[in-house]
Amino acid sequence: MTTRLLIVNPNTTASMTNKVAAAAAAVARPETVITATNPISGPASIQGYHDAAICVPNLLAEISRHSDNDAVVIACFDDTGLDAARCAVEVPVVGIGEAAFHAAGFLSCRFSVITTLGRSVPGIEANLVRYGLAARCANVRATEIPVLELEENDPSVLATISEEIRRAISEDRAEAIVLGCAGMADLMVALSAEHGVPVIDGVACAVTFAEALAATGLKTSKIGGYASPLT
Amino acid sequence: MTTRLLIVNPNTTASMTNKVAAAAAAVARPETVITATNPISGPASIQGYHDAAICVPNLLAEISRHSDNDAVVIACFDDTGLDAARCAVEVPVVGIGEAAFHAAGFLSCRFSVITTLGRSVPGIEANLVRYGLAARCANVRATEIPVLELEENDPSVLATISEEIRRAISEDRAEAIVLGCAGMADLMVALSAEHGVPVIDGVACAVTFAEALAATGLKTSKIGGYASPLT
Amino acid sequence: MTTRLLIVNPNTTASMTNKVAAAAAAVARPETVITATNPISGPASIQGYHDAAICVPNLLAEISRHSDNDAVVIACFDDTGLDAARCAVEVPVVGIGEAAFHAAGFLSCRFSVITTLGRSVPGIEANLVRYGLAARCANVRATEIPVLELEENDPSVLATISEEIRRAISEDRAEAIVLGCAGMADLMVALSAEHGVPVIDGVACAVTFAEALAATGLKTSKIGGYASPLT
Amino acid sequence: MTTRLLIVNPNTTASMTNKVAAAAAAVARPETVITATNPISGPASIQGYHDAAICVPNLLAEISRHSDNDAVVIACFDDTGLDAARCAVEVPVVGIGEAAFHAAGFLSCRFSVITTLGRSVPGIEANLVRYGLAARCANVRATEIPVLELEENDPSVLATISEEIRRAISEDRAEAIVLGCAGMADLMVALSAEHGVPVIDGVACAVTFAEALAATGLKTSKIGGYASPLT
Amino acid sequence: MTTRLLIVNPNTTASMTNKVAAAAAAVARPETVITATNPISGPASIQGYHDAAICVPNLLAEISRHSDNDAVVIACFDDTGLDAARCAVEVPVVGIGEAAFHAAGFLSCRFSVITTLGRSVPGIEANLVRYGLAARCANVRATEIPVLELEENDPSVLATISEEIRRAISEDRAEAIVLGCAGMADLMVALSAEHGVPVIDGVACAVTFAEALAATGLKTSKIGGYASPLT
Amino acid sequence: MTTRLLIVNPNTTASMTNKVAAAAAAVARPETVITATNPISGPASIQGYHDAAICVPNLLAEISRHSDNDAVVIACFDDTGLDAARCAVEVPVVGIGEAAFHAAGFLSCRFSVITTLGRSVPGIEANLVRYGLAARCANVRATEIPVLELEENDPSVLATISEEIRRAISEDRAEAIVLGCAGMADLMVALSAEHGVPVIDGVACAVTFAEALAATGLKTSKIGGYASPLT
Repeated sequence: MTTRLLIVNPNTTASMTNKVAAAAAAVARPETVITATNPISGPASIQGYHDAAICVPNLLAEISRHSDNDAVVIACFDDTGLDAARCAVEVPVVGIGEAAFHAAGFLSCRFSVITTLGRSVPGIEANLVRYGLAARCANVRATEIPVLELEENDPSVLATISEEIRRAISEDRAEAIVLGCAGMADLMVALSAEHGVPVIDGVACAVTFAEALAATGLKTSKIGGYASPLT
Repeated sequence: MTTRLLIVNPNTTASMTNKVAAAAAAVARPETVITATNPISGPASIQGYHDAAICVPNLLAEISRHSDNDAVVIACFDDTGLDAARCAVEVPVVGIGEAAFHAAGFLSCRFSVITTLGRSVPGIEANLVRYGLAARCANVRATEIPVLELEENDPSVLATISEEIRRAISEDRAEAIVLGCAGMADLMVALSAEHGVPVIDGVACAVTFAEALAATGLKTSKIGGYASPLT
Repeated sequence: MTTRLLIVNPNTTASMTNKVAAAAAAVARPETVITATNPISGPASIQGYHDAAICVPNLLAEISRHSDNDAVVIACFDDTGLDAARCAVEVPVVGIGEAAFHAAGFLSCRFSVITTLGRSVPGIEANLVRYGLAARCANVRATEIPVLELEENDPSVLATISEEIRRAISEDRAEAIVLGCAGMADLMVALSAEHGVPVIDGVACAVTFAEALAATGLKTSKIGGYASPLT
Repeated sequence: MTTRLLIVNPNTTASMTNKVAAAAAAVARPETVITATNPISGPASIQGYHDAAICVPNLLAEISRHSDNDAVVIACFDDTGLDAARCAVEVPVVGIGEAAFHAAGFLSCRFSVITTLGRSVPGIEANLVRYGLAARCANVRATEIPVLELEENDPSVLATISEEIRRAISEDRAEAIVLGCAGMADLMVALSAEHGVPVIDGVACAVTFAEALAATGLKTSKIGGYASPLT
Repeated sequence: MTTRLLIVNPNTTASMTNKVAAAAAAVARPETVITATNPISGPASIQGYHDAAICVPNLLAEISRHSDNDAVVIACFDDTGLDAARCAVEVPVVGIGEAAFHAAGFLSCRFSVITTLGRSVPGIEANLVRYGLAARCANVRATEIPVLELEENDPSVLATISEEIRRAISEDRAEAIVLGCAGMADLMVALSAEHGVPVIDGVACAVTFAEALAATGLKTSKIGGYASPLT
Repeated sequence: MTTRLLIVNPNTTASMTNKVAAAAAAVARPETVITATNPISGPASIQGYHDAAICVPNLLAEISRHSDNDAVVIACFDDTGLDAARCAVEVPVVGIGEAAFHAAGFLSCRFSVITTLGRSVPGIEANLVRYGLAARCANVRATEIPVLELEENDPSVLATISEEIRRAISEDRAEAIVLGCAGMADLMVALSAEHGVPVIDGVACAVTFAEALAATGLKTSKIGGYASPLT
């Protein structure tokens, strides 16, 4: 049975969409058909609350343009527009941030997040509080690597992330690491092997959790906060 | 010393903007100059996460169009776009929801919120958790009155709200009531008198708190989550 | 690629194990090979802290007897022995209680749990606090149906559960329902259809989440609380 | 319309009362008439739970002596006697600690407090928990400067506070600083300018928030915890 | 080895002090010497924040007057002056409210409190939050019986309390009951027997916990919030 | 009146049982008769979730073998099997971990725990969250001393613990220290004297709190989570 999965990268950087699509394909079931897309206008990267707010209508338009799906993944680590997207469709919608946090909860007692700029940290922390997983997160660490530098394959970027992981393990007593940006999706396997702990990419988790929810046949509740828009 | 205060109603219903402007004028300092505005396109009312997300870019455009201010008030009870607006400007930005919650915290040990549709309740509850005031809120009660019916001056609407206040006092042990919609801004004085408890309108609180913050000379912090957008 | 999934029912009632296996097969990937088992000695049902504690060594022995797996599911709603099982193996281990709570978090803003006896409620509530999802759970409702009565296909049992779901929706403002016992696994589809909200069975969620985690290649962290036993 | 504002410094040090009065006058509306007072007997400074408890009856007597007011400010950072004062009068009562915390919540995602002696830290932390803002406070830092040394205008005192602010910004990831003593009220403007972040004085915030609440016409709820004393 | 135990009733009603002394004697070790006292001036009962604040200096004076003790009990359910008293002495100080809450935590998963007037409820709830036991408390129920009516041995008072216990068991799912006033200390044994659940009096718990702490030889920490007053 | 107290060390190391018995005897009432025991099969020490789960049935069997008691103490710092033991008997059951945390709450505003291996930390932290005392605990510090090394009286072990206490006081702002292993029970008096703060052993606290609860005559509630097993 085919599962049709829509993945929306809310920023406009096609190379990130491609990286996300590759990370998704690497873990998806053979019977899953993936559509990965991004809006054509809006911010090139989402770094903080302002970028996140600006891109949501375009994100919702992308979801509306690709309506025939069994589940939707929002491929931005701050789970941009997640609640609004759940109002827009009946199928399950999964954010890569929340997926990574939940996966870390299944695999460890305590985790740290390694993200890009410091300005993104408060939004991530607010999500952790809201999802109830703040008590399990030891620290959200900013590398001060801008999102788009992750696209340039500079080896020093990988070294910086790896060093921050080392610190999270020794200073935060983190048992697992969450990679705090969709642009880090290609690093999960190598960093897990290097550090000997789960280094968790939200794209892989969101794709497989979306498949999981689709397989159960469960849908988003439509009688409360995720009710369909009235207009 | 003049304080220039921008109030943005994020929906497009001019009668609500006018009602908000009147409620603001009723409590503002004589030296405050108020500009009340709303976007010209977008949802006519904000009922749930989807409407809220859709209107934020227009809300930010309104703020950008009226840039010469000492403080900004966002006149939607779910504090639509509040974080993004704080990134956009240096002056203090106050949401009417958070202002009402904080006022209730100054005036009572425990409060209930009376709002419009049930679909808006989860967003309000999420804000209470995030702001840290969930423990002080006994209940968020939906009247199932749509936002725009508040504009029609139907006496049965007032009776419904008043009855819900009575229940909140007796069933929730609420010591104060927060009116959970900008469209209820004109009801504060009469309902406070009728029920003998503080019945708190967020517009009045946000306007006076915005004046307060402006008077201190303090500005929004620009070194973290509310840093100015990079692009 | 085959995924080998071990499902352990920690009680000794083979009919429950069979029901769980059927619920698992209904949602599992075609390439998943499921082994469902239960200990041959120990409590016939797990109703409260004492039963739960007694069955854990037998549960761990079952896991140890079936060691060649890609993921493990513990099919008891109070997630009996979950932490200990995570110490015992390297592959992901998922409890049906936590899986159901996380699924409810992906699909709704607020959920209620419908369980069997009142004596099981405190353990479920303690798990919700520990997992961080207590704030999302409106209520844990006991039907006072003993676990083994669920095996008897008495129509009044289904009616009681259905009535409790109705109350949870109207009295708790629940947007989704979590079925709080492995023995209710066969009721998910019919009750979801009847009530028009997600009625979530933990077996289905745990099986598909376990497949999901296995597909990512991530393993349980072994450097902290889930380190392998020293002896 | 005149607003009559009573500010009570609960300790007996007149120079602190004068400093508080000056800080209040610097931000108050032109139409506000301020009375600043302190008890004539009791502790010269409030450093910890014991001093705080001792001064409350005298604080309440001061409030009772100056009964014709529109709002009351308690000018001690640990919000000494705040609940009791709310029972004593109908007009709004604002503590400088809570006012500063709320202001920090309006202006930043995360703040640190810089206070005097370590013995005062637990009381401040308990207030943060009770007000619900503990999650927003990164750290409460003690400078080990006794309260009364703040009255001596020793430049090394200012240097110590400034250095602690620097550490809070770099080590705590604080986006705003709360000055944790009424005796630091004169430092807000200079330290905000020096550090480029909001450095928040509770006196300024409490005075303007008290004006704000008075302008709304709202009063303290008298039907619960703040009911008037029976005798 | 003799343990000298000071019990201070912070109100001035000698009949309550006598009742407390009798409840203490009923549970104390044979080798414990109890001194029970109350201030001679101040409120006759403590009903809310204002009464509580007024009586603390007198309470501290009583403690100071009887300085040669191994432990101190504060016999008011809202734990009036507890922090200040811990600053004043080196020996352990136990409040009857906190003692009852901790005992309920040792004996049940979930408890309700039955207290006197509604105005006392917020203070009790604030203590529960501060002590960390709010999550274990299902409800704080006010009987609206004034404290001093408990001294009159009116059978209808006992009937009212008993009926409220019944409701707490059936409506709150309470597994234990905490009696929320020192004036109810004589009711523990009979009500426990009548209702078949632990009905917990704080005086009995505080006396035996104070003996317990004294027996360990541990003292109150003097390096932080409970440091001895500087003056 | 004699109090019969059963102390069960859930591991099989008799030297620890003896040390626990000695620590108990040092603080117990003269009229208390102590039986200290341990299972004869099971783990020699309990280091993490797996050991803890394995030993519970044996622990329950020991309790069942010694049934004629007035209270039970479980002498393992992670409170192994505490909930199950409360189901098994009617008399109060106290864990040494929870007893130490509660004692720290009576004696200080903020404490740190010094325990053995890092793998035990998450279980201790989970208990703190569940008991509601997480907010009072500054840190749980692992010395990486295995439990059984505590039995060897190596002076370097004491030096390591003492150094960690020093760090907890200066780095964590801890006002009291909780010794996080039954095997440290003999160190309380010397370390309290050395460091000038309460250094709290759970055995001493659990024994005296168990005596305290027994003296009140209160029993474990049998109507909810601690109901007697059905089979």
